[in-house]
Amino acid sequence: MPAEIPANSVGLVATQTFTHRKPFLLQCGVSLPGFKLCYETYGTLNAARSNAVLICHALSGHHHAAGFNSMDDAKPGWWDTCIGPGKPIDTNHFFVVSLNNLGGCNGSTGPLSVNPASGAAYGPDFPTVVVRDWVNSQVLLAEHLGVETFAAVIGGSLGGMQAIQWAIDFPDRVHAAVVIAAAAKLSAQNIAFNEIARQAIASDANFLDGRYSDGVIPEKGLGLARMIGHVTYLSDDGMREKFGRELKSGNPQDLQKSADIEFQVESYLRHQGQAFSRHFDANTYILMTKALDYFDPASEYADNLVDALAPVQAKFLVVSFTTDWRFSVERSKEIVDALIAARKNVASAVITSEHGHDSFLLPLPRYVEVLRSFLGRIHADVNGGSQT
Amino acid sequence: MPAEIPANSVGLVATQTFTHRKPFLLQCGVSLPGFKLCYETYGTLNAARSNAVLICHALSGHHHAAGFNSMDDAKPGWWDTCIGPGKPIDTNHFFVVSLNNLGGCNGSTGPLSVNPASGAAYGPDFPTVVVRDWVNSQVLLAEHLGVETFAAVIGGSLGGMQAIQWAIDFPDRVHAAVVIAAAAKLSAQNIAFNEIARQAIASDANFLDGRYSDGVIPEKGLGLARMIGHVTYLSDDGMREKFGRELKSGNPQDLQKSADIEFQVESYLRHQGQAFSRHFDANTYILMTKALDYFDPASEYADNLVDALAPVQAKFLVVSFTTDWRFSVERSKEIVDALIAARKNVASAVITSEHGHDSFLLPLPRYVEVLRSFLGRIHADVNGGSQT
Repeated sequence: MPAEIPANSVGLVATQTFTHRKPFLLQCGVSLPGFKLCYETYGTLNAARSNAVLICHALSGHHHAAGFNSMDDAKPGWWDTCIGPGKPIDTNHFFVVSLNNLGGCNGSTGPLSVNPASGAAYGPDFPTVVVRDWVNSQVLLAEHLGVETFAAVIGGSLGGMQAIQWAIDFPDRVHAAVVIAAAAKLSAQNIAFNEIARQAIASDANFLDGRYSDGVIPEKGLGLARMIGHVTYLSDDGMREKFGRELKSGNPQDLQKSADIEFQVESYLRHQGQAFSRHFDANTYILMTKALDYFDPASEYADNLVDALAPVQAKFLVVSFTTDWRFSVERSKEIVDALIAARKNVASAVITSEHGHDSFLLPLPRYVEVLRSFLGRIHADVNGGSQT
Repeated sequence: MPAEIPANSVGLVATQTFTHRKPFLLQCGVSLPGFKLCYETYGTLNAARSNAVLICHALSGHHHAAGFNSMDDAKPGWWDTCIGPGKPIDTNHFFVVSLNNLGGCNGSTGPLSVNPASGAAYGPDFPTVVVRDWVNSQVLLAEHLGVETFAAVIGGSLGGMQAIQWAIDFPDRVHAAVVIAAAAKLSAQNIAFNEIARQAIASDANFLDGRYSDGVIPEKGLGLARMIGHVTYLSDDGMREKFGRELKSGNPQDLQKSADIEFQVESYLRHQGQAFSRHFDANTYILMTKALDYFDPASEYADNLVDALAPVQAKFLVVSFTTDWRFSVERSKEIVDALIAARKNVASAVITSEHGHDSFLLPLPRYVEVLRSFLGRIHADVNGGSQT
């Protein structure tokens, strides 16, 4: 709980809901009878409606990106370090929109929602959703908010993939795309880690092919999936710094009770896994990892990413982190090189960090300054050159 | 099945058993009433008994390292590429001993063995075994075979840790230690991956705290553990080469059936996991990963590896592979640097390979030549300088 709201916070924010009441055709061919998206906004849309910024979330993210929903909140939104008055995504300048994606489990239509056709929750029958579906649904949200063009679409990891897809599919509606710790497509290793996470969930006796009930969820399987994610989103160096080989308690010579927790890192992982599985839905986790696996805009252009990026008009900022091995610097370089080959406007930065993929959520000084500088220029652009 | 035994094979070999009939005190303080070790030997012990080589196996290894146990065998032993007449571990020169370690599940005393105290299988009650216990049991096997001093103790990964421990604990009984793709201790990340593997096994509803029966084993959990190992023992580049993003079958646009196998790598992993869990014991897997985690010879010397290595007399060869990220080049460098600081005789090689940790099992030309060259010199040493 914040004793008082910090001055550079967006403050107390309320979650809003956008309801689309018409059929919505997904890329898989299934049509949803309609959908609901939960979202929050921070800052004010200007009269020219030119200062809107869309925040796209990653695998386990949601709409609550900044500020507090109540004075009882222990922590602010997941990207509060970067969104707020005077912060890099400056709410004194921008009207920031953050949503929970279709298929999510934080209030937007997804596996936990009631399927009107059956009267029961969709569960595993929720149709496959891909990044393009999210972009299409975000277009409808933008129209609902009166936003024709986003000053920037911004995201890390899976969120960065959405920014790329926006710039390809709606080139005249994205002034800038900020792609952080992402890739133009996953590597086989990355798909393999996602597959193991899905297998961990599917192997849980409580999963029941996704037809688990509220009370009996595949907590162990989802916890394992989270542990795998957690270890692979950190770097070896970062883990050494954080845990070393510290024993949690007791005598290291007391080796008999091998089933007990002994290393700090073990205890930490178990806690992370358990905490996560109590507030996230397993079917959504599977859906989100599949969306990651399927993302591959070049596949429609004979695997030529340069051709796929041909329609792009947006200015790009591509950021990666030295120790991120799931979305490595090389993967970001591929995006940058393809944008250059396609003669697009692209800035890029490789940030030295020991925190692996999770770096994109941290207020690393150089990273924050790169965002601040780029978005300052974008703000000047959309304000006709005046730095208000 | 070999149509005929290749000329450079050790040929048909029979598994032998060494039974130690006296109490054996483990580092954890528990005393086993005795134990049995399965082993094989290749080549002939010379009259001076100076040409014996010990092969120490890794996490999921066993005693059958070379040749064939029957003409029906589909494949030779796990290190047949390196052990045989004219091969780097040349059975024309060396008497090679390969065993299944204590706690294993391939015939040596372990969790599957009957506990004389209860009349039932040890299962999860099998005491914790550490690398030093293995070395102590290997000393007894050596004495049984009439081997006072090994010309070389050789191992990859967990096997390399045994070679290090041999050189520290029995300096006058090891002429050379060959440490391949190993580390002087695991990193937090490495411990974390082992912990996730153990949690995957423990989370399986069939695990029953290790008291599963022959018929109902924790197949899914052990399969998951193997998948995690498999992905992390390969490199990102190696997986790209092997699988890319190839779809197994069907139309990539047919995204509705998201539960189906789609990428080649997914199908491969599931197969690997299932095959492994049918022939390996889950309690042994847990025991072996704990032995990896606990290995840390410097811990007895205030974390000073140089001090820990002070007793060493053996000539060392330390080999690592460029894309091995679980036992990285840096970890091998730590061993080499400590040996240099301790003024020991050490040769080392970093082998360029795209196959990650699994490289140590592959016949990569430069790797094979490094082993051949080093062991040729060791053979000359133990034969009084004559290259017979």
